[in-house]
Amino acid sequence: MYFWDGLLGPVSGTPDSYIVDRALPLPERALIERIRRRLGRRSLAVVAGIGDDCAVLRVRPGHQALVTTDLSLEGIHFRREWHPPESVGHRCLARGLSDIAAMGGEPIAVFLSLAVPGKLPQSWVDRFMDGLLRLAASAGVVLAGGDTAESPAGVLADIVVVGSVAGGKGILRSGARPGDRIHVTGELGGAAAALSLFSKRRKRIPPKDYPQHFFPMPRLEAGRILSGQRLASSMIDISDGLSTDLRRICEESGVGAEIEKALIPVARIGRARQPVDVRFALHGGEDYELLFTTPAAKRVPARIGEVPIAEIGCITRGKKILIRNAHGGLSELSPQGWEHFRT
Amino acid sequence: MYFWDGLLGPVSGTPDSYIVDRALPLPERALIERIRRRLGRRSLAVVAGIGDDCAVLRVRPGHQALVTTDLSLEGIHFRREWHPPESVGHRCLARGLSDIAAMGGEPIAVFLSLAVPGKLPQSWVDRFMDGLLRLAASAGVVLAGGDTAESPAGVLADIVVVGSVAGGKGILRSGARPGDRIHVTGELGGAAAALSLFSKRRKRIPPKDYPQHFFPMPRLEAGRILSGQRLASSMIDISDGLSTDLRRICEESGVGAEIEKALIPVARIGRARQPVDVRFALHGGEDYELLFTTPAAKRVPARIGEVPIAEIGCITRGKKILIRNAHGGLSELSPQGWEHFRT
Repeated sequence: MYFWDGLLGPVSGTPDSYIVDRALPLPERALIERIRRRLGRRSLAVVAGIGDDCAVLRVRPGHQALVTTDLSLEGIHFRREWHPPESVGHRCLARGLSDIAAMGGEPIAVFLSLAVPGKLPQSWVDRFMDGLLRLAASAGVVLAGGDTAESPAGVLADIVVVGSVAGGKGILRSGARPGDRIHVTGELGGAAAALSLFSKRRKRIPPKDYPQHFFPMPRLEAGRILSGQRLASSMIDISDGLSTDLRRICEESGVGAEIEKALIPVARIGRARQPVDVRFALHGGEDYELLFTTPAAKRVPARIGEVPIAEIGCITRGKKILIRNAHGGLSELSPQGWEHFRT
Repeated sequence: MYFWDGLLGPVSGTPDSYIVDRALPLPERALIERIRRRLGRRSLAVVAGIGDDCAVLRVRPGHQALVTTDLSLEGIHFRREWHPPESVGHRCLARGLSDIAAMGGEPIAVFLSLAVPGKLPQSWVDRFMDGLLRLAASAGVVLAGGDTAESPAGVLADIVVVGSVAGGKGILRSGARPGDRIHVTGELGGAAAALSLFSKRRKRIPPKDYPQHFFPMPRLEAGRILSGQRLASSMIDISDGLSTDLRRICEESGVGAEIEKALIPVARIGRARQPVDVRFALHGGEDYELLFTTPAAKRVPARIGEVPIAEIGCITRGKKILIRNAHGGLSELSPQGWEHFRT
C-alpha cells in the first residue's frame, strides 16, 4: 500500500465494521492534494513519488543508500498539551535527519507513516505537516510517500529517511581506536533541561526560548564535512544522552573512553540564557548534536560552518568509560544517568 | 536512533517518569542477540545493518531504489484474539513485499518499527518475529534495522521494504492505455471471505484452512517476470479490493475499464474448498494478488511460475469502470463495495 491509500483501506475498531470501507474524517483526495501542493520543488533523486506502490529513488553512481526509521509516539516522545503540532512534526523528522548526519550522509527522501485518532482536528495534522515540511525544505529533502491509518489511541508517526553517502565514506559507530580524540558539536543538555521544566511546572513553556527542545537542528552540514574530509573515525548523534551514546561508540568499537567534565559544552536556555546543570549535558537526550572521534594526527577546526566543535576527551584501551572532575578525580560514567532525576 | 536503541531511550507514559530511562520488559541486549542469531545469512546488499545510526545498502549499478512503508495496527489490521502472532508478523511483511512485487522489483532489506504494550508477553514478540523472518527468508530479504518503543495501547508495527529495479523497468500505476487487456494473478476474495467468518462467528478459524487470509504470499516472482519481459504496461497489488485498486490504475492512467464478472477467478476457502461469493472477489482486500494491464500485441502466458493468470477485461477510453454480468448487462463498478456487507 502507499501514501494515503490507508485512508481508503479497510479500517475501523469494532468487529462488525472491521472489513467495512467507511467514510473517514480526513477526505483522502483533499489531503493528498493539500500535501502535493505543499511539497514544493520536485527532487531529481525521486523518480516516482506519492501515488504508486513504491517510491522510485535514484542513488548516485558510486554511492550507497542509507536508511533509518524512528517512531514518535504521543505520551512517550511528545505530549499534545505541551508540544505545538509544528514542533511535533519538526522533531519527528529531526530524529531521522540526525541519523543521516551521523553517517556523514545526504538525505534524499522522507517517508511518513502517520496514524491519528478519528477525532483529531484536521488543523492539528496541517500544523504537524507544516513543521515537518518546513524542516524538510531547509534540509533539501522531499516527502516521497508513506502510509496513514486511524489510530485507536494517540498520534503515532514513524519517519523513514533515505539518504546516500559516497561508497566507503559512511562513518560507522565502530571505527574509534585508542588514542582518538572525542568531540561534540554545539552545546548539550538544552533539550532535556527544557523537558524537566515541563515535568516540574506542569505547564507550557514558550518554544521560542527553548529551541533546543522544540526545534532541534540536525547537524547535516557538519556530518557531511566530517565525512567528506575523512576527519571522523566514528560518529553517532546524541539522541539518548552523551553517557549512553558514548557507551554505544565504545561498545561497537571495543574500546573505552575518558572525558573531562569541565570540557563539556553546556547549553544555555530560556530568555536569560542560563547554563543548564551539567548532568543534563551528560545524560540528557534529544540534543541531536554529533559525537565523533578523530585520529590524533588529524586537525579538527574550532567550528564547522556555524557550529562550534569541542574536544571533550579521548578513546582508551579497555572497556571503561571514565569522567574526570574539576579536582582531577576519575569516576566511572554510568549510562543510567536519568535515574538521578527520578521523582 | 536505530534498531533497539528505542529500548534504551527516554520512555514512559506518566509525566514524572517522562524523561526517566527505566528498566524495560524486554531486555535490550538479549533481544538484539536473539534477533541477530535468527537473522541467518547476511546479504551482500546490506553493507552495515543493525547496530549503527543507519543501515547502509548497496544498490546495483543501473538500478533504482524502491521504498514502501505499511502500518499494521492492532484492532485495525489485526486482532490479537483472532490472529496467531506468526500470522501478524507474516502479514505485516507481506504487505510491504507485495508493493515491491507490484513494481516488478526485487526486495533488498526490511526495516521494522515496532511498538508494544509493556505487559505484552515476550513469547508474543518472539512468535511475531518468527512469522516475519520466515517470510523474509523465503523472499531472500534480510531485516536490516528499525526502531522500538513502548506503546500506550496495542501493538503497532510499521514495515519498510527497500528494493531495487533496473532503471526504467519499474511498472507504475499510470501506464495503462485504451485497448490494453486487464489481468490478475491467482484467485481473489479468499482473505476477505475468511475475515467475514471471524465477524459472523466471533471465534477463531483454523489458519491452515484459510492461508489466503493468515499467510498470503506476495507475488514477487510474477512481478519480476512481468517487469523483466516488459509484459505489463501498469501494475498494482490488490490490497484494498479489485474494485478499489482497479480504480487507482484508471485514475493514475486517465482511462476507464470494462471487466467481465464471469472471468473473475474466485477463491476457494476452508477444508471443503468452497468458492467464495463473487462480491468478496470484487471488493475484498488483502489478497495481495497482482492486477496488471498488457498491451494488446503482447502474449501473456496462462501461468507464471506456479501462479495462474486470468484475463478479466480491457482498458477503455473515458473514465468509467464498468462490469458486465452473466446476461451481458453493463453496470458501473463502485469502489465502495464493502458497504454491502455492513451489518
